[in-house]
Amino acid sequence: MLDWEKIFATRSSRMRASEIRELLKLLDRPDIISFAGGIPDPALFPNEEFQSVYSEIFSGPTVSAALQYSVSEGYLPLRRWLAGEMAKIGIAAEPENIFITSGSQQGLDYLGKLFLSPNDTALVTWPTYLGALQAFNAYEPKYDQLTPGGNRTPETYREAAAEAGGAVKFAYLSADFSNPTGETVDRAGREKLLDLASELDIAIIEDAAYQSLRYDGEAIPPILALELERNGGDIDKTRTIYCGSFSKTLAPGLRVGFMVGNAQVIRKLVLMKQAADLHSSTINQMAICLVAERGFDAQVGKIKAVYSRRRDCMLAALEKYMPEGVSWTKPEGGMFIWLTLPTGMDGAALLAKSLETAKVAFVPGKAFFADGSGANTLRMSFSCANDDMIEQGISRLGTLIRSETAG
Amino acid sequence: MLDWEKIFATRSSRMRASEIRELLKLLDRPDIISFAGGIPDPALFPNEEFQSVYSEIFSGPTVSAALQYSVSEGYLPLRRWLAGEMAKIGIAAEPENIFITSGSQQGLDYLGKLFLSPNDTALVTWPTYLGALQAFNAYEPKYDQLTPGGNRTPETYREAAAEAGGAVKFAYLSADFSNPTGETVDRAGREKLLDLASELDIAIIEDAAYQSLRYDGEAIPPILALELERNGGDIDKTRTIYCGSFSKTLAPGLRVGFMVGNAQVIRKLVLMKQAADLHSSTINQMAICLVAERGFDAQVGKIKAVYSRRRDCMLAALEKYMPEGVSWTKPEGGMFIWLTLPTGMDGAALLAKSLETAKVAFVPGKAFFADGSGANTLRMSFSCANDDMIEQGISRLGTLIRSETAG
Repeated sequence: MLDWEKIFATRSSRMRASEIRELLKLLDRPDIISFAGGIPDPALFPNEEFQSVYSEIFSGPTVSAALQYSVSEGYLPLRRWLAGEMAKIGIAAEPENIFITSGSQQGLDYLGKLFLSPNDTALVTWPTYLGALQAFNAYEPKYDQLTPGGNRTPETYREAAAEAGGAVKFAYLSADFSNPTGETVDRAGREKLLDLASELDIAIIEDAAYQSLRYDGEAIPPILALELERNGGDIDKTRTIYCGSFSKTLAPGLRVGFMVGNAQVIRKLVLMKQAADLHSSTINQMAICLVAERGFDAQVGKIKAVYSRRRDCMLAALEKYMPEGVSWTKPEGGMFIWLTLPTGMDGAALLAKSLETAKVAFVPGKAFFADGSGANTLRMSFSCANDDMIEQGISRLGTLIRSETAG
Repeated sequence: MLDWEKIFATRSSRMRASEIRELLKLLDRPDIISFAGGIPDPALFPNEEFQSVYSEIFSGPTVSAALQYSVSEGYLPLRRWLAGEMAKIGIAAEPENIFITSGSQQGLDYLGKLFLSPNDTALVTWPTYLGALQAFNAYEPKYDQLTPGGNRTPETYREAAAEAGGAVKFAYLSADFSNPTGETVDRAGREKLLDLASELDIAIIEDAAYQSLRYDGEAIPPILALELERNGGDIDKTRTIYCGSFSKTLAPGLRVGFMVGNAQVIRKLVLMKQAADLHSSTINQMAICLVAERGFDAQVGKIKAVYSRRRDCMLAALEKYMPEGVSWTKPEGGMFIWLTLPTGMDGAALLAKSLETAKVAFVPGKAFFADGSGANTLRMSFSCANDDMIEQGISRLGTLIRSETAG
């Protein structure tokens, strides 16, 4: 019998099941109040709009095209619509600067594949989106800590990367309401990051999955828009690659995301996709395009009204029920609040107890740290919980944490 | 300005545009008769069946699930239906042995990622499916020639691989009506391949994209079925990974394919998919499942009737119009006939002339050879051409070749 481990490539050893996916299963247990899932509330999906456009596609002249193979760069009308949306946030892009992916997760995988040789360094925040670490891990990189607005010099990054056996290839971050912390990088931090990337001569991967979901405060231009301001507006001279998603605004089940950037990079990614899965679903790209053209802003408005209320509700409940020594972020958008427990308290141990007694689920923060730190942190999602669940769940969790700190 | 080439990973240098994709554009030129595209005839897509199931999904209780995130291994009812189909061709598999991919192309990419370290050797036929070479290329392998039924010893493969700086990791082939040759490996050849793989202790990747499309002759059990016969039926002791597709039977635009094999391998691939694109489109998997459950055999029957007639028509036209010195395969299924021109005649040069004078398109065979040989070969597809186009196109091509051989 074949000893598979012997013939697997070394990169396959990096593939590990995420505990978060396991936690998502708790959503189906009626006795548990779950703040674990980072998924959109299905009650907000534009079902009727999708029903109507699929029906239209099947009745119209493009039905054969919808079911046929199509080009790897993606459906042109969707890329045109995206170019219009990008212009609204300060990013002047042509369709050739826009590439359709099967969710923005695929964009992260492709960027890892494009940039990372084994032992190259990726700069990521501590904590960062777990799915980005999983995507990049397949290409066997090292990680170093990105601190937007911080004071690490280019030289220290360069030296650490050389010592690790490679070079710094990119800085990855979510600048708006990030997963997992909900925090936003301010304009000064973004400018400083552009300086750092320029000095290191590396790419910036801007994960904009939550960017449309701002509930209050003033919008900050995307990093790519700030870079365009610096260089006179020529996207083909930029180093920032903007990764967007329809999963948080329209629906994740269609698997349609996108990337915007320098055409030199986009062309490479298109070739990569041609070899990797040919193209994203033709019919789903058409459906997303029609729904977006007809009512993207209205749909986003609907979601924002619900999620912002849930965020307010969770922040109020935390204020009311959390004992001293626990602190949390105050996100201006997105789906997440990040809790820091008293030093020494362990999020994973707390979860185990919580599932037994308080019957509340969340994600221990440790999984989001490339260096395995962050044991005393938690990620709480408010996207799928109603007011009552939030009030009850935070109350029960507060009681548990209070008893732990007393103990 | 960033020098991108400096920060791209070395694997990115393997990404090249395929000339075949360029040739596909000729399908839209009304003055050209094209036998180039290896794509299904959209006139045969089950449009009404798809229209009906999408409508049903949107009206039913699973609409939220259809638009939501789902599990990386794929939609369970579809995996159950596939288990039933596999049983019919001698492959006893549980749903845990079945994994849904975004087209079988994605399966090939994942297998490259799972098995190949740079300089490892992949065994492929000369010629082989170009998309497989493109998928594997990203992982920087070497290739050695697989000759099913041939006499290369395991030692010569092992030595050549070691000399190339790695080890043999798998044998890849399409055993039924392969792209590009249309040829089928007989049972003895499959058994011999199983012996070779066992002696080399490597995996076999069985690309079964065309397997359902047999027009005559007796079906030969899949390689995975023959391996199961040898080991008493335990799929978790097999080394063959079977890659299937709905692109040639139902529709490619939904991007739904599948893999069947040893659960140890499937589990790794599921983790890989989780990190690479989370999962294939939920709604499309549901739609494929419903259409397949209700009428897969009828749909395949419809396609086979049309394609087998076109194959007959093309074979008759070749017999009628090709000059001496030209030979071709007689496929029992699939979409392709493979022509061998007189030695010294160049397929690419012939194509250039043909587009000028005969106005007939095909694919020069060289692209399908990992070693760059095969200059005097052509791939002709009959899937999208009607009788009249075939008669006219082959006649004009025959005249051109005759004038070339005379010259």
